Amino acid sequence: MTVPERPEVLGEARLSLWAPSGLGEVRPGDDLAALVGDLLAADAARSGDALAEGDVVVVTSKIVSKAEGRVVAAADREQAITDETVRVVATRERPGAPPLRIVENRLGLVMAAAGVDASNTPEGTVLLLPLDPDATARALRAAWRARFGLDRLAVLVTDTAGRTWRDGVTDVAIGSAGLRVLDDLRGGVDSHGRALTVTVTAVADELAAASELVRGKASGRAVAVVRGAGRFVLGGADGGPRARSLVRTGPDDLFREGTAEAYARGLADGRAGS
Amino acid sequence: MTVPERPEVLGEARLSLWAPSGLGEVRPGDDLAALVGDLLAADAARSGDALAEGDVVVVTSKIVSKAEGRVVAAADREQAITDETVRVVATRERPGAPPLRIVENRLGLVMAAAGVDASNTPEGTVLLLPLDPDATARALRAAWRARFGLDRLAVLVTDTAGRTWRDGVTDVAIGSAGLRVLDDLRGGVDSHGRALTVTVTAVADELAAASELVRGKASGRAVAVVRGAGRFVLGGADGGPRARSLVRTGPDDLFREGTAEAYARGLADGRAGS
Repeated sequence: MTVPERPEVLGEARLSLWAPSGLGEVRPGDDLAALVGDLLAADAARSGDALAEGDVVVVTSKIVSKAEGRVVAAADREQAITDETVRVVATRERPGAPPLRIVENRLGLVMAAAGVDASNTPEGTVLLLPLDPDATARALRAAWRARFGLDRLAVLVTDTAGRTWRDGVTDVAIGSAGLRVLDDLRGGVDSHGRALTVTVTAVADELAAASELVRGKASGRAVAVVRGAGRFVLGGADGGPRARSLVRTGPDDLFREGTAEAYARGLADGRAGS
Repeated sequence: MTVPERPEVLGEARLSLWAPSGLGEVRPGDDLAALVGDLLAADAARSGDALAEGDVVVVTSKIVSKAEGRVVAAADREQAITDETVRVVATRERPGAPPLRIVENRLGLVMAAAGVDASNTPEGTVLLLPLDPDATARALRAAWRARFGLDRLAVLVTDTAGRTWRDGVTDVAIGSAGLRVLDDLRGGVDSHGRALTVTVTAVADELAAASELVRGKASGRAVAVVRGAGRFVLGGADGGPRARSLVRTGPDDLFREGTAEAYARGLADGRAGS
């Protein structure tokens, strides 16, 4: 893996994102590397903006899931959530609806409904998250490095997630290849020459969020290209760090259980005399 | 307040961000509207890219705090955190360091150390968050609407925050004016014509994250301009929704206490026989 030079302090001062339209509906078994590759090639032919060294291609998890046939009947939604769940974090009853379940899923992601989603899917169906989005990002990157003759290229697979204590959703990276997903500034210096000791920026998630802005949720655009973040983009055939490495659960997780769940467990233990 | 037309389904397909350098160190009492306005004017003169209708100007909370003189001696950091705290959410002991405190602060933000920060500040000092970043965003917007003769202009004040269950930090919006901070798609339709029922995108936070990518943490760049998100930008003198409205704490907060704190409370109640 070729690691780019440590960026100079000023870094990039311009970032451009665009989201080509025209992908069409993705179906189970489709070759996503070919389909999205064709879209990128057609867009480049139209705009003159060919994919270049240091670019990041962002694809939504939705089209990955569709290509993988990860569709189940909406009637089976609750069972699907259960099947995708590794650990329940918090639940809340909702009048007239199944309980809200915030869980850790197969991919280590803590999400409402395990990431099982009903938007932008055919009527009567829901979509599960991709089987292995880090592997998909690697496969797409390998295909496009070869097809477009590029070395330093990154690929992200994104999904939409809620946040504790913040309203609204943002996109995050659930698959990554060819990207320094975290920009670890520890060891660097700030503009006062003071050592930066704690700041580790979640570059992959910031790129995911930025790409959502240019794609939009209702547009059907599932692909975006980001140019100007090349200082985070890796060369070489190796895919580099996985998006999975952004997951922080386990002993360091101060919010491993919802407040109500943790309180109830304590109450039961207290009553049992432990 | 003039609300822009509901965006057509395709929305914008291109987003550009740039971060002018050359602001210099901001000092207590500085007129930030004039300083940053001069920077934007100089940058426009240099690049030919004048600020335009629908642009979003993003400034870091750091320069707002500096202009407000929100600097305290590093020795007083722990007391400053206590003073900024409205409610303790979770704490963790750390060997050889003061305990980690995740708290809700004056602004409703749940953050480690209440948002009190030591990076990019003069040696021996720490910075508190701005007094009222929504008000600052409004004041900056009013000044720049007048100076640059624009109607539809948005201003964001951003800060850096950690996330539960995700490694690394991203920037979020803590002050906003002239922006639909949430893109409420409920009532719209997806690409299958199905009603979008749950998706509310945190546009302000996605813009904050995107702007961090172009500014960078170590560069000293504290201002960014985002072009291409005009469908979220409001006209009129009224500032529209506040970033404060993105805060979600209170009864709907399933993570009001850390797991250890909630468990301990339950255990005590159980032992007391309640």
